Amino acid sequence: MTSSFASLSEFRSLLQNMPGLDAEAAEAARLHDSQLTKPPGALGTLEDLAFWYRGWRGGARTEIKAPQIIVFAGNHGVAARGVSAFPAEVTAQMVLNFQHGGAAINQIARVNGATLDVVPLSLDEPTQDFTTAPAMDEAAFLDALRTGWNAVSAETDLLVVGEMGIANTTSAAALACALLGGDAVEWVGRGTGVDDAGLAVKAQVVAEGVALHGGKGDGLETLRRLGGRELAAMAGAMTRARQLRIPVILDGFICSAAALCLERSTPGALDHALAGHLSAEGAHGRLLAALDKEPLLNLNLRLGEASGAGLAIGVLRAALACHAGMATFAQAGVSDS
Amino acid sequence: MTSSFASLSEFRSLLQNMPGLDAEAAEAARLHDSQLTKPPGALGTLEDLAFWYRGWRGGARTEIKAPQIIVFAGNHGVAARGVSAFPAEVTAQMVLNFQHGGAAINQIARVNGATLDVVPLSLDEPTQDFTTAPAMDEAAFLDALRTGWNAVSAETDLLVVGEMGIANTTSAAALACALLGGDAVEWVGRGTGVDDAGLAVKAQVVAEGVALHGGKGDGLETLRRLGGRELAAMAGAMTRARQLRIPVILDGFICSAAALCLERSTPGALDHALAGHLSAEGAHGRLLAALDKEPLLNLNLRLGEASGAGLAIGVLRAALACHAGMATFAQAGVSDS
Repeated sequence: MTSSFASLSEFRSLLQNMPGLDAEAAEAARLHDSQLTKPPGALGTLEDLAFWYRGWRGGARTEIKAPQIIVFAGNHGVAARGVSAFPAEVTAQMVLNFQHGGAAINQIARVNGATLDVVPLSLDEPTQDFTTAPAMDEAAFLDALRTGWNAVSAETDLLVVGEMGIANTTSAAALACALLGGDAVEWVGRGTGVDDAGLAVKAQVVAEGVALHGGKGDGLETLRRLGGRELAAMAGAMTRARQLRIPVILDGFICSAAALCLERSTPGALDHALAGHLSAEGAHGRLLAALDKEPLLNLNLRLGEASGAGLAIGVLRAALACHAGMATFAQAGVSDS
Repeated sequence: MTSSFASLSEFRSLLQNMPGLDAEAAEAARLHDSQLTKPPGALGTLEDLAFWYRGWRGGARTEIKAPQIIVFAGNHGVAARGVSAFPAEVTAQMVLNFQHGGAAINQIARVNGATLDVVPLSLDEPTQDFTTAPAMDEAAFLDALRTGWNAVSAETDLLVVGEMGIANTTSAAALACALLGGDAVEWVGRGTGVDDAGLAVKAQVVAEGVALHGGKGDGLETLRRLGGRELAAMAGAMTRARQLRIPVILDGFICSAAALCLERSTPGALDHALAGHLSAEGAHGRLLAALDKEPLLNLNLRLGEASGAGLAIGVLRAALACHAGMATFAQAGVSDS
């Protein structure tokens, strides 16, 4: 098990040689489910969650004992263009808030029995403004990928990644626009709450970025050029999780954009991940459709911080508790037809 | 605080004189929310849940410490008509399964930190076949309402009611058809998994029942004629919860049909309840629309047993944890614009 990587080409090679679904474990899960005291299919999505988790985790492992939530934080050069309703200082202020337990994700992690790690990435060095240069040079990009990779605990049995970074919905919209096409205006949204003028600036900034760096190129190179440190770190963490057979729950628009970069670089790279929720950020649904993911929850959230994916932990845990804890028809003496 | 009721007219009178929303508490919740470290509205539905809970619970009470799940079980005369994929004995067998901890709701209750009470109602005396007589006489109906009323613990701070009863989707469809109109065939669904022939029988049975007992009458009288003991008990429990200012989460199609009877008897009687989920039983969405409720989750469940509402407890608990536990902008030193 490679503990890290020395170069981008080594990361690419790791990404292309990841473990796949354990088909035997998934099939065993289906067989077990068919014997449980309920009409076939009556637990709907909960059944699919159990098959998915057991298949990716491998073997008979059905319980979530050590879910890990990691929130990566980064600052963006494009923040200076006025694309956010909040000033760039808020990224660092919110990192302190995470560290002191005062943010939404702290409460959601606690309620769901998950550990929460907060990883700020060079907050006093924003990425380059991607309308004038690539957001990161290769060294900075590699460093962010590696930070994400190393943040995943090998003891974890479920990974949730989230982010904080003023202006990062603009970065995410640029990634989606570059990789999936369409007009910039279709990919930008209100983020933390920009007004109409701010929204127009976002669309302009995204269009400029995509024009400068070209569209529909390689996912990782696009991530380096239009992404941000926290987005690269999320991509690194998701990849490391795949290597360790740790299933992943995706959060909202920004997390999904990071996932898209991996998927476009190596199709199937996100097969071990499910979409935790549909965000209120308008283009998230299209992004999930491009990833071929159905969101588990739809709670009109637009906060990031891993909040939606964190809520999904509770549903997944219940799904696995049913799968592992229910009696069979034979055990309970219940007539099965 | 009335601990119970001696007659149906006394129950009606209680139902018509229930406490309303504590507008001051709901407004205090909104004010508090506006100061929390997140963009306004960014927690979407979680914010609405906090306003709803605080408004109905009253005062500053924001934590769920003692959620109670009650599963009521009853048997139905119409089961003899062949409307279910399972034999009527399964109701009693599943009650034993609940008592031994082997059902889905046992796992869901445990994972969500809720107590689970199982209340069988005269399982060896099925209700009358409603195609030939009222399902219950007044004494049996009153007894079932009272059993539900008395099952609610005064220490509870959140109530979830669910049911088990072979043939009870047929009873629920008859209630919906009688109170909301339309053809029987629009209200029946696969339930635990009947085939096409069984589905046709269900529609026929519902049509006969509605023809015999008349449609669009009083909600409680309709519940007595076309309902079942577990449906009446759910209605009694929801009413008792309102009296005690205990917010309620509705489960699926059958629970919602019981709720509809209360709402049609006394408009507003269900204002203290939210819809936990949208069931896979086809007509549930129309039933929730008639109740003017948006479901919190959509997980394709069709199990009953309070399973969907039980899952919603986790989301509500997280919503209240955010509301009560997050720092304000001032506390955290975060710039708020």
